[in-house]
Amino acid sequence: MNEGFKEGARLRVAVAGSMGYAGAGLVAMLGRHPEVELVQVASRSQAGQRHREVYPGSECDLTMVEEVNPAACDVVLAALPAGEVAIRTGAWLEQGAAVIDIGPDFRLADPRLYRQWYGVEHARPDLLAQAVLALPELEPGALTGASLMALPGCFSTAAILGCGPAVVEHLVEPEVLVDAKSGISGAGRQAGSSYLFPELDQTVLAYSVGGHRHRPEMELALTRLAGEACSVIFVPHLVPMTRGIVATCYLTLRPGVSLEDAQAAYRHWYAAAPFLRLGDQPASSKLTAGTNLCYLSLHQQGDRLIVCSVLDNLGRGASSQAVQVLNQRFGLTPTAGLEQAPRWP
Amino acid sequence: MNEGFKEGARLRVAVAGSMGYAGAGLVAMLGRHPEVELVQVASRSQAGQRHREVYPGSECDLTMVEEVNPAACDVVLAALPAGEVAIRTGAWLEQGAAVIDIGPDFRLADPRLYRQWYGVEHARPDLLAQAVLALPELEPGALTGASLMALPGCFSTAAILGCGPAVVEHLVEPEVLVDAKSGISGAGRQAGSSYLFPELDQTVLAYSVGGHRHRPEMELALTRLAGEACSVIFVPHLVPMTRGIVATCYLTLRPGVSLEDAQAAYRHWYAAAPFLRLGDQPASSKLTAGTNLCYLSLHQQGDRLIVCSVLDNLGRGASSQAVQVLNQRFGLTPTAGLEQAPRWP
Amino acid sequence: MNEGFKEGARLRVAVAGSMGYAGAGLVAMLGRHPEVELVQVASRSQAGQRHREVYPGSECDLTMVEEVNPAACDVVLAALPAGEVAIRTGAWLEQGAAVIDIGPDFRLADPRLYRQWYGVEHARPDLLAQAVLALPELEPGALTGASLMALPGCFSTAAILGCGPAVVEHLVEPEVLVDAKSGISGAGRQAGSSYLFPELDQTVLAYSVGGHRHRPEMELALTRLAGEACSVIFVPHLVPMTRGIVATCYLTLRPGVSLEDAQAAYRHWYAAAPFLRLGDQPASSKLTAGTNLCYLSLHQQGDRLIVCSVLDNLGRGASSQAVQVLNQRFGLTPTAGLEQAPRWP
Amino acid sequence: MNEGFKEGARLRVAVAGSMGYAGAGLVAMLGRHPEVELVQVASRSQAGQRHREVYPGSECDLTMVEEVNPAACDVVLAALPAGEVAIRTGAWLEQGAAVIDIGPDFRLADPRLYRQWYGVEHARPDLLAQAVLALPELEPGALTGASLMALPGCFSTAAILGCGPAVVEHLVEPEVLVDAKSGISGAGRQAGSSYLFPELDQTVLAYSVGGHRHRPEMELALTRLAGEACSVIFVPHLVPMTRGIVATCYLTLRPGVSLEDAQAAYRHWYAAAPFLRLGDQPASSKLTAGTNLCYLSLHQQGDRLIVCSVLDNLGRGASSQAVQVLNQRFGLTPTAGLEQAPRWP
Repeated sequence: MNEGFKEGARLRVAVAGSMGYAGAGLVAMLGRHPEVELVQVASRSQAGQRHREVYPGSECDLTMVEEVNPAACDVVLAALPAGEVAIRTGAWLEQGAAVIDIGPDFRLADPRLYRQWYGVEHARPDLLAQAVLALPELEPGALTGASLMALPGCFSTAAILGCGPAVVEHLVEPEVLVDAKSGISGAGRQAGSSYLFPELDQTVLAYSVGGHRHRPEMELALTRLAGEACSVIFVPHLVPMTRGIVATCYLTLRPGVSLEDAQAAYRHWYAAAPFLRLGDQPASSKLTAGTNLCYLSLHQQGDRLIVCSVLDNLGRGASSQAVQVLNQRFGLTPTAGLEQAPRWP
Repeated sequence: MNEGFKEGARLRVAVAGSMGYAGAGLVAMLGRHPEVELVQVASRSQAGQRHREVYPGSECDLTMVEEVNPAACDVVLAALPAGEVAIRTGAWLEQGAAVIDIGPDFRLADPRLYRQWYGVEHARPDLLAQAVLALPELEPGALTGASLMALPGCFSTAAILGCGPAVVEHLVEPEVLVDAKSGISGAGRQAGSSYLFPELDQTVLAYSVGGHRHRPEMELALTRLAGEACSVIFVPHLVPMTRGIVATCYLTLRPGVSLEDAQAAYRHWYAAAPFLRLGDQPASSKLTAGTNLCYLSLHQQGDRLIVCSVLDNLGRGASSQAVQVLNQRFGLTPTAGLEQAPRWP
Repeated sequence: MNEGFKEGARLRVAVAGSMGYAGAGLVAMLGRHPEVELVQVASRSQAGQRHREVYPGSECDLTMVEEVNPAACDVVLAALPAGEVAIRTGAWLEQGAAVIDIGPDFRLADPRLYRQWYGVEHARPDLLAQAVLALPELEPGALTGASLMALPGCFSTAAILGCGPAVVEHLVEPEVLVDAKSGISGAGRQAGSSYLFPELDQTVLAYSVGGHRHRPEMELALTRLAGEACSVIFVPHLVPMTRGIVATCYLTLRPGVSLEDAQAAYRHWYAAAPFLRLGDQPASSKLTAGTNLCYLSLHQQGDRLIVCSVLDNLGRGASSQAVQVLNQRFGLTPTAGLEQAPRWP
Repeated sequence: MNEGFKEGARLRVAVAGSMGYAGAGLVAMLGRHPEVELVQVASRSQAGQRHREVYPGSECDLTMVEEVNPAACDVVLAALPAGEVAIRTGAWLEQGAAVIDIGPDFRLADPRLYRQWYGVEHARPDLLAQAVLALPELEPGALTGASLMALPGCFSTAAILGCGPAVVEHLVEPEVLVDAKSGISGAGRQAGSSYLFPELDQTVLAYSVGGHRHRPEMELALTRLAGEACSVIFVPHLVPMTRGIVATCYLTLRPGVSLEDAQAAYRHWYAAAPFLRLGDQPASSKLTAGTNLCYLSLHQQGDRLIVCSVLDNLGRGASSQAVQVLNQRFGLTPTAGLEQAPRWP
């Protein structure tokens, strides 16, 4: 921790990648966070401009820099394309900044998996061992003292929150099928012409049906939670909306386990979790828009346990989850900066 | 067959329920169908008015009647709420009209299943035995000479077309998981306030997660095709678009069966099918809007065969499938009235 | 003012019509407002149920009552259908509660206008004289001591904020043309089948082209601001989104008046207004979603001054404007309960 | 006319720019047109590939060429970016092909206007004199024998059809105000990141408020129709849908002219027009999607005549209008290739 983080002082945070959807979400939330000070916002493409002048709706007066200066902050929150954080993290850590990475570079413990799914060598495989995949409700202790924290991807977050308690408690077989539906913002702001409005409006599109990069993340996390190998089948779909994910998770109840058993386990695990909401019916995904909430409902067909897990891919699936992890890691108020309520309609 | 259907004369068709989305689709297609004559359109709520004056975009000059007169037509195509066709079909058949029912009344062979899923007694269980569940590509022979034809529901059509060849050829275990995403028009035009635009825009909503009425239809059809009991897990979701279904079907390949084996089987079964299209990648659902097309793509994850089945819930899932069945049953040109091409965007 | 409103005590507020979109927005905002206490929520259709159990996303634990009790609160905020507030306001005022009405009953000073546009006699024409049409930036003084406050409609608010400074300063001719585009939520939650998702998705629809109820409101307000008769031409359109209004206002610059003159006037009038934002380019309406903001931009073609006025029909056009008026009338912090920032995307 | 166009032979047509939305629409329509033969499709970016393999939903088996060969066709239909047709048209005409241009290069008679609005010099100002701006209903004779035909832009088409009869008949003052709302596809398929789905969903955005390129087109056409200078004020808006335009046209009735007079004039002018539909109420824009229809309704407020003009920007505003002009110019069946009916929903 840099010296600047003294008792009584506010935590100094910097955002790398502040012109993308997730990064700009961080800028908005951290700028209003009562217990931190947003000291730097970086964007290579827009360096030199004030954030509020180039990002729609921004209230941030800071002038963007090309690269964050880790010596002048306590924590870097990064929302960069794959590969970019792996290159920078070493320097950030060496200069005393902790790192919370929304991107994929430190999610997969094994560099061979990274090469397999991202098509390039990992730039800093030596740092993988110290990286913590943050699961704030399911493995709260893992964040203690962590300096390099990776967030699971948006789909993975929905799936892990949806399957976690059943898997941890061995109520289900260690094989999970996740069918997810996501808003288009998951593709980011630099997406190509196939993400133009007329191409994606009024339509549903399955993609990466043979295998998506979030699948190994899910398998690693659920395997660790289960204490035994847990396999995942995963298919994502794009639906014509901006924000939101519904992950419909299909699990197989072990013999003798009832739906009520599963519901009791979820209530137990998430009883004190301020951002998790259990309901009898599936939530409409837009209830989560702009919030850090995850809504869960449990159902049964035959011996299948079906969990509907609903969150905002840019909120709990990205920016606000990063703030939640920040709060938890640094002992801030758990809900600080995350008070946004559901809105209907 | 009524006497009116002489050689050289055009088949006389009537539409019951012509003010709903599916019924109005029938009116539009049959009005332009070169080999039939649309002679009656019925609507209890709008009887006495000309169709074109009350249904948006309609080009049909006929004045709506309260009930179709089966004596004056050769075929009744019905798009009525559950229970309404069961009440009327006896009279229609007795007066010599064949019946093609888009609705659910004659899909389930067992009246106990009907009571279980629709909550009322079937009005004419005696007619169930003669009803044919139409699967025009998979069981073409079944339509020969049929006088009472039921169409599978929109979700069922997508699932059965998607799983059929694999199930018939025993390439997969007789257990199917279907996760479907549907446009809102599937709820019909009389839907209540929970289908208002602001309630369903910008959101995905799972529903009937514990069991949906189309599940027993799928089980019956796939069981018949498999020649052994085939169980189905099925969850539908509403997505914010008007038309279209993507049914993502998860099957388990039997030992020794490859993805290529499955692809070969689908090519074989659907080689001569004018409305089925096999592709390497999942289709965008809006390609099917307004058409009778069903796009299929096959994929693999581990030992799972994943089939993406894409169609228009109001087209191949309702109105245009009825016309396809009409054409096939009465020896008309298979594509007559169904030439609408995909449109992009 | 009821006795309950003592120094040091929080203002006690009640919401009538708490199950509609505007009313539920009030419940959400007032429930988190740091300077008021939400003491009653009323809904005739849902009385007896807790608000959070029946309204999506609600966090309000109060059990709904059939009618608010004016003796137990200091202010009633009403979001009821036309005619309902006129019936109740007399009793509310007599028992010491102030009234802030989102609906139309007290917007038109002349009961003949009310009859003309709403088709019924006004129930309490005797109260019209004491009603104040709230224009918090343009006529802040008018709220002082007011006990019966009416908010202009959503379209009127956009038009009046967009045209006000130019009209007050006599920079333009007293004739205004307003072409407005609104999200569907403006129709409310009890709207009929013509507001179903499939009817309004993927389409733009002009309506009330011969005359809309908000036109006389605009004329009254602008006439009062101008000090001379100001006529309005107004056409609203529905666009396929949930929230938001863009009112494009066409005015004619008086001879010798430049665009820069107009911009200076707007800057002057709105310099201290926390919810008004002037920009060089038209704002995207979704920047205002869920906020109390109104974005304005001024442009010129020939001798026309064109003002784009953008706000959320349920926010600044309804609920949050009511809270703004509440704050202003009762000397609360102007932005209390209204801190919601723009969100992108 | 090239020699290939003999009596009895089908007209040979080529499409330049076949991978954009308008060009691909031409490919689809001409491929099914019973009276023409689609002989070439060109696309510089995709030359060498078969159209059906790279454009979604295409049924065209032709392999794309880099440039059309005018010697091998009778007509080139061009849907290219501004400037591209000006460069090519000379060669096309010299080799005997007629040209129908969807783009802007030959709409403005004066090369100075072109420079002013498009920022570059016109490549072939010498050809401007022979170009005909096609107004098939309002100036049918102008197409006779034309070899270089330009279509008005999508907004201009809506405005000219909406204002034409009133202007021609001098029922209104020669000053028109057009407020238009367009689907996003108007921006084309190569649009940049500001046309990504999350940027344009759930929002309305006014643009080019100080002046849009279609304004001088409208002024030229309406001035010619009026026989006197006609000025236009024009503001376009993007709305979150794929296809469709609603142009709300505000005109001032001359003294003594009634709404009924105007309605009679429109009925007279459009009585025999197969693609024009007059109604009492504004049409929902999606009724025109995929069709060549234009719906018009006339209304009055004070002395204003308000005309709602509704069409598909990619249909009557681009591709299908080109086919209409093709049919008219070459004496084909007026509706050939253009039979697509409205669809609801």
